Amino acid sequence: MTQTDTQAEAVLAAIRFDANGLVPAIAQQHDTGEVLMMAWMNAESVRETLATGRVCYFSRSRNKLWRKGESSGQTQHLKQLLVDCDGDTLLLRVQQDGVACHTGRRTCFYRAAGEGGLTETVAPAVSPEALYGHTHG
Amino acid sequence: MTQTDTQAEAVLAAIRFDANGLVPAIAQQHDTGEVLMMAWMNAESVRETLATGRVCYFSRSRNKLWRKGESSGQTQHLKQLLVDCDGDTLLLRVQQDGVACHTGRRTCFYRAAGEGGLTETVAPAVSPEALYGHTHG
Repeated sequence: MTQTDTQAEAVLAAIRFDANGLVPAIAQQHDTGEVLMMAWMNAESVRETLATGRVCYFSRSRNKLWRKGESSGQTQHLKQLLVDCDGDTLLLRVQQDGVACHTGRRTCFYRAAGEGGLTETVAPAVSPEALYGHTHG
Repeated sequence: MTQTDTQAEAVLAAIRFDANGLVPAIAQQHDTGEVLMMAWMNAESVRETLATGRVCYFSRSRNKLWRKGESSGQTQHLKQLLVDCDGDTLLLRVQQDGVACHTGRRTCFYRAAGEGGLTETVAPAVSPEALYGHTHG
């Protein structure tokens, strides 16, 4: 999916960015409904995502655009971008290549509240070292 | 689902609340996978949600606990609470009674980016007046 600049501006006009110029964006696998992750976008990353069809977030920790998959290869292809009723949250329906989580799991939501606090519900599909091409520590 | 206080504290310890003491929480219909809404929780609302099994958010506009459905009757029953990899987002898998959105739609995400900007993808299931027992304007 791509959008012309004019179309992107119409979408941007409906988004209520916060005081930092950011809006939370939920990524959901388009066909299974699995919620993969939540990250943040600024106007520039929304424009790039609509123009390229590849999801681009804004990294708050690195303070720059974060083209999902640029280091890991785990790209998100946009199928549909939705804006919520009051314009302060986005839902990105995507085709996730590989895994969404930096831990090597398909989804970032792998810890569930249960009897003893949190329990892991999803095992890693790949090792983080395989994703990022180096070992840690 | 209910949790003892001790179990709730173990969950809370894994959550990284923001500078305002809040964390974004995504509500997803547990069986269909539909993403219904995103709202915010503070520690007290997480505790209440785990203790009662009914979803309680924190309303930033009203600056108080927001027991979902308290005025509309559209309650969310918690099936599972998940914490993401870095602890700064929650995913609530719920049974949504009726509709999640104050516009009378099942989901708050009913506006999709398309050819001409945003188009509505979901029609209201009930009127807001029916939900809140009064007319506006």
